[in-house]
Amino acid sequence: MTFETFGDYEARVRAGFAAQGAMETMGMQIDSVAPGEVRIAMPFDARLGQQHGFLHAGVITSGMDTACGFAALSLMPEDAGVLTIELKTSLMAPGKGERFEYSGRVVKPGRNVMFTEGVAVALDGSARREIARLSATMMVVRGREGIKG
Amino acid sequence: MTFETFGDYEARVRAGFAAQGAMETMGMQIDSVAPGEVRIAMPFDARLGQQHGFLHAGVITSGMDTACGFAALSLMPEDAGVLTIELKTSLMAPGKGERFEYSGRVVKPGRNVMFTEGVAVALDGSARREIARLSATMMVVRGREGIKG
Amino acid sequence: MTFETFGDYEARVRAGFAAQGAMETMGMQIDSVAPGEVRIAMPFDARLGQQHGFLHAGVITSGMDTACGFAALSLMPEDAGVLTIELKTSLMAPGKGERFEYSGRVVKPGRNVMFTEGVAVALDGSARREIARLSATMMVVRGREGIKG
Amino acid sequence: MTFETFGDYEARVRAGFAAQGAMETMGMQIDSVAPGEVRIAMPFDARLGQQHGFLHAGVITSGMDTACGFAALSLMPEDAGVLTIELKTSLMAPGKGERFEYSGRVVKPGRNVMFTEGVAVALDGSARREIARLSATMMVVRGREGIKG
Repeated sequence: MTFETFGDYEARVRAGFAAQGAMETMGMQIDSVAPGEVRIAMPFDARLGQQHGFLHAGVITSGMDTACGFAALSLMPEDAGVLTIELKTSLMAPGKGERFEYSGRVVKPGRNVMFTEGVAVALDGSARREIARLSATMMVVRGREGIKG
Repeated sequence: MTFETFGDYEARVRAGFAAQGAMETMGMQIDSVAPGEVRIAMPFDARLGQQHGFLHAGVITSGMDTACGFAALSLMPEDAGVLTIELKTSLMAPGKGERFEYSGRVVKPGRNVMFTEGVAVALDGSARREIARLSATMMVVRGREGIKG
Repeated sequence: MTFETFGDYEARVRAGFAAQGAMETMGMQIDSVAPGEVRIAMPFDARLGQQHGFLHAGVITSGMDTACGFAALSLMPEDAGVLTIELKTSLMAPGKGERFEYSGRVVKPGRNVMFTEGVAVALDGSARREIARLSATMMVVRGREGIKG
Repeated sequence: MTFETFGDYEARVRAGFAAQGAMETMGMQIDSVAPGEVRIAMPFDARLGQQHGFLHAGVITSGMDTACGFAALSLMPEDAGVLTIELKTSLMAPGKGERFEYSGRVVKPGRNVMFTEGVAVALDGSARREIARLSATMMVVRGREGIKG
């Protein structure tokens, strides 16, 4: 699929990401930005674990949701903002690994709503294991004060 | 609905919660524990915000998922552990407030799988506003090393 | 919650329902219409079963989705149409019963998007058993040709 | 991914499908069966439409759910049965077409639970358009009376 973009979409995505306190607190960083596709990476951090020592499902969801939200933003007009309407996470394996990658991509762009999908991968040395998948709907918000980027 | 519990379910829930690094990092605390029902509270924290300054959808999801997971654990046998299989969050309003409450309850217990639902409420002074709802499936894990509580 | 309605919302809901070939094929009928709330009923029909003789999950979903869609329509302006953006069904018990009831209600109305929840109940004689729950997002469609009601 | 199968998995899938009254009523037929992957096809039928004349979301969900359920069954032991625990459908475009294809595949097999994903495609002449996607969790049921296949 080839996607239409508007202006410097990558700068808008990176600025929006940098403005997220949650990403810094969770140790997540942007790995790559392409039209309709964003990748985020983080090291494991016990301060974000659940009771068995695995990465918390909500943290895994945060990574995929952010990747998908900015994947959607990368295809939006310059004055638009993105908000998640709903998301579903399937947790296929425990969040066990040295590092984690979250990728998000737009599966169907739209003027008001964008459909996205995300994947979370756990990395141990050179081994990669898919641990979760996300399906999320993003809203294209325009003309609402305070919601841009 | 009246639910069957096993042994000191409240102690197990509180111990599991205390073992979650993510809850401490996110400033979440247990408010109450009852059979099949758990409530969690937290103050707003800009370090957990998204780009418009609202609480991050993944953090809201973390709170509801944790409340639902421990609501399910409260009805499980003493040697069992809980893992989230999947969750869906509906984000009805931006995460804007001074404090937040996350409640989770079991809508259908089971030997292998428990169905749960969660609600997130934002509080400003004495005003309460529902901002999100969760639907999640929890797995009852037995006899798997390292997964208890 | 008290909801605002527009014109003869009940007539619009009943007309929309009557125009659904799927409802007739599945033997479903409207039981009641209130602002933001619709109930549908059907008898069991082996022609809508799955391989173990239970009602098919897709049929149960159809009933709850329709109830929720028209619950949303009941709160929309007179020139609007409703489309489901996404839905999630939790199947808590097999679809076993003499009759089934599907209810849908709006949990958060909105100008562009409405959040809804549904419940499916199986009836055997005087026994009622909840078998499924739905969470769905409905789009308020305006000015798109062919999409009204 | 290479999947392990047990005995004549294709015969079990086809027998299970043939036993579904809902599939016959909806005019759906199996197109292909492979390990962890099933495809189903149907012509458009106004008797399965919603109020704007599009195929009903619940029917689209039925097709994808069935494809995913049998994709999961194709990887299960010979004495097992499959039940859908939960499903989520994203409806990216209206159900408008001459024919429809529903494919389902296992994204993560398991001893107790299998994660699956589905896609629905509308066909008009030689044009193909993706209209919906499904994410569903399937339970591997063993030793429960009446639930086999």
